[in-house]
Amino acid sequence: MSKKILVLPGDGIGPEITAQAVRVLEVCRDTFGLALSWEEGLIGGAGYEATGEPLPEQTLAQAQAADAILLGAVGGPQWDKLPDISKRPERGLLGIRKQLNLFGNLRPAILYPQLAEASSLKPEIVSGLDIMIVRELTGGIYFGQPRGIRELENGEKQGFNTYVYSESEIRRIGRVAFELARKRNKKVCSVDKANVLEVTMLWRDVMEEVAKDYPDVELSHMYVDNAAMQLVRAPKQFDVVVTGNMFGDILSDEAAMLTGSIGMLPSASLDEQAKGMYEPCHGSAPDIAGQNIANPLATILSVAMLLRYSFNEGELAQKIEQAVSDVLDQGLRTADILSAGMTQVGTDAMGTAVVNAL
Amino acid sequence: MSKKILVLPGDGIGPEITAQAVRVLEVCRDTFGLALSWEEGLIGGAGYEATGEPLPEQTLAQAQAADAILLGAVGGPQWDKLPDISKRPERGLLGIRKQLNLFGNLRPAILYPQLAEASSLKPEIVSGLDIMIVRELTGGIYFGQPRGIRELENGEKQGFNTYVYSESEIRRIGRVAFELARKRNKKVCSVDKANVLEVTMLWRDVMEEVAKDYPDVELSHMYVDNAAMQLVRAPKQFDVVVTGNMFGDILSDEAAMLTGSIGMLPSASLDEQAKGMYEPCHGSAPDIAGQNIANPLATILSVAMLLRYSFNEGELAQKIEQAVSDVLDQGLRTADILSAGMTQVGTDAMGTAVVNAL
Ligand SMILES: CC(C)[C@H](C(=O)O)[C@@H](O)C(=O)O
Ligand SMILES: CC(C)[C@H](C(=O)O)[C@@H](O)C(=O)O
Repeated sequence: MSKKILVLPGDGIGPEITAQAVRVLEVCRDTFGLALSWEEGLIGGAGYEATGEPLPEQTLAQAQAADAILLGAVGGPQWDKLPDISKRPERGLLGIRKQLNLFGNLRPAILYPQLAEASSLKPEIVSGLDIMIVRELTGGIYFGQPRGIRELENGEKQGFNTYVYSESEIRRIGRVAFELARKRNKKVCSVDKANVLEVTMLWRDVMEEVAKDYPDVELSHMYVDNAAMQLVRAPKQFDVVVTGNMFGDILSDEAAMLTGSIGMLPSASLDEQAKGMYEPCHGSAPDIAGQNIANPLATILSVAMLLRYSFNEGELAQKIEQAVSDVLDQGLRTADILSAGMTQVGTDAMGTAVVNAL
Repeated sequence: MSKKILVLPGDGIGPEITAQAVRVLEVCRDTFGLALSWEEGLIGGAGYEATGEPLPEQTLAQAQAADAILLGAVGGPQWDKLPDISKRPERGLLGIRKQLNLFGNLRPAILYPQLAEASSLKPEIVSGLDIMIVRELTGGIYFGQPRGIRELENGEKQGFNTYVYSESEIRRIGRVAFELARKRNKKVCSVDKANVLEVTMLWRDVMEEVAKDYPDVELSHMYVDNAAMQLVRAPKQFDVVVTGNMFGDILSDEAAMLTGSIGMLPSASLDEQAKGMYEPCHGSAPDIAGQNIANPLATILSVAMLLRYSFNEGELAQKIEQAVSDVLDQGLRTADILSAGMTQVGTDAMGTAVVNAL
């Protein structure tokens, strides 16, 4: 059975970087004989311009019909001031996550030895860094009700959101983290603020419960403020980190930046059947869009994650990861990861190099 | 009129470090002729052990009667599993903040040139770092209602908290940030998650409004995930950062750790009349308590902040800060900031050195 991929280029540099990732898909199909097909869809600002919605109905239908989704990036300044917030590009992203129940967000923070210099941290602190941040993606304060802005009796406005998690939501993301840890260094650090927030006291209790099914994996707990510190102080202490939607948003970006090369980091967002959406960790970078200078490697590495997690093609995934490592060894660099003595190449040329290395 | 200070040693290393800070108060009174008096009170685990409450009524009364409060630190493993959460040491801290309306939390992240090596970041990234994080301390999700853990109809538990801010709460913390920026580099960066959370959309709007009264100060906005990244990538881009209670908890700890010497960082928590509570940024470090090895400098620098913000004694504050810098120049270091070629000293000896330098 041929597998179907929905490609959502999105905004900014999205179309350029997904184009290079699609070339890698072509190699998977043509050279490695994977039964694959794909089609494109609209999301974010591109969706809004074409249909008035950041997540057009047709895109949602395409996504539901697909076996996996590859996303570029969404957003841009022209849509930041849209008075109707429900039309902004980010809403398309939040919408597709929620509609497809993509609750398990995997955000690796890996330092490529070839790019160690790019980090703002001292080499001994980050060399060999390999953390997997597991972020709950369809619950928590991002989706909690009630929410809004109301007027108080004294006439002033009050904004409010609700941070909420149920046991089952916590349990299923916990399982994702423990399963991953089993295949890694067998350590899960659960991040909460259980000394202040009741919702994260429940989080902590449920994680303890889940841990009972994984006696081979070590569970620790850390408050989110301490986790933000420890990531700076000694990031290599972490193996798998599991946390809620908002803390995960913050900590995964912090962890990504430890590597200094966020243009290299892919991510996966999975449902219970490991159907998933794959996208680079970086944003749509509208300032450099259309100039053939964006780094396509995070999107190409997202293809590797797609093959591994949704199509169970771990070997082929590794081949792609190896090809990326090879082009770095060849000294090829896009502008964002350029350093002295290396050869600067554009988006296209980087894609070509990976295709050739494959 | 003599000023009254309430000293709350608290738990762990709290008593040792406040003892050294009190020696500095003695110098202020005896050598510099400041009309000062102080008394001690109980808080945290110490309060709980003596009275059954982490914030005894008497302590609250003492605090209300005082002109300023100097706190060591609270907490320890023996109280972490107290089944009644309202008795845990942290609750004493949250309680005194709320009861005294100490909404304005100032957390400087300053890198002492003498300690540049201690940072896990490259020297060029952090040298000269001087950020002021202004955190709202008596509102937001820390205190929002409703909150708790309830049982759903299907029998599973659900935890919930409420993230809430009103215009007036946002406005008053905004003013604190803009006033501080005026005396610094005239830049305020307000951190929110306005692309997702309604409460922080209101936050952003109110900050824009406050900015109108400060045409000489530049206001920018940043999403919290990006702020967590930018602190790692290029922290010197920030002057004053203003944010809510929870984001402030996370970002101020991350910023503090950039310096690598959290044992050096004081903090202030102020009400509308600049009556305040002053404490080191670090915790109670129960593992090293009672060994005369803790670093008292953050607590001593908290005395300097106390003099500056609550007693309007900026010159004397600067003298204390200079004395701290002098002892670092002399090569004296407690264990936490020790590096090759320096002289290791204990808590007492460090206090003595500062007193002598003064
Ligand atoms: C664009 C935004 C809504 C999104 C989020 O906060 O989840 C992004 O920051 C991310 O982490 O994917
Ligand atoms: C101990 C804890 C409740 C407290 C907080 O979260 O405010 C601490 O982390 C701090 O930052 O002062």
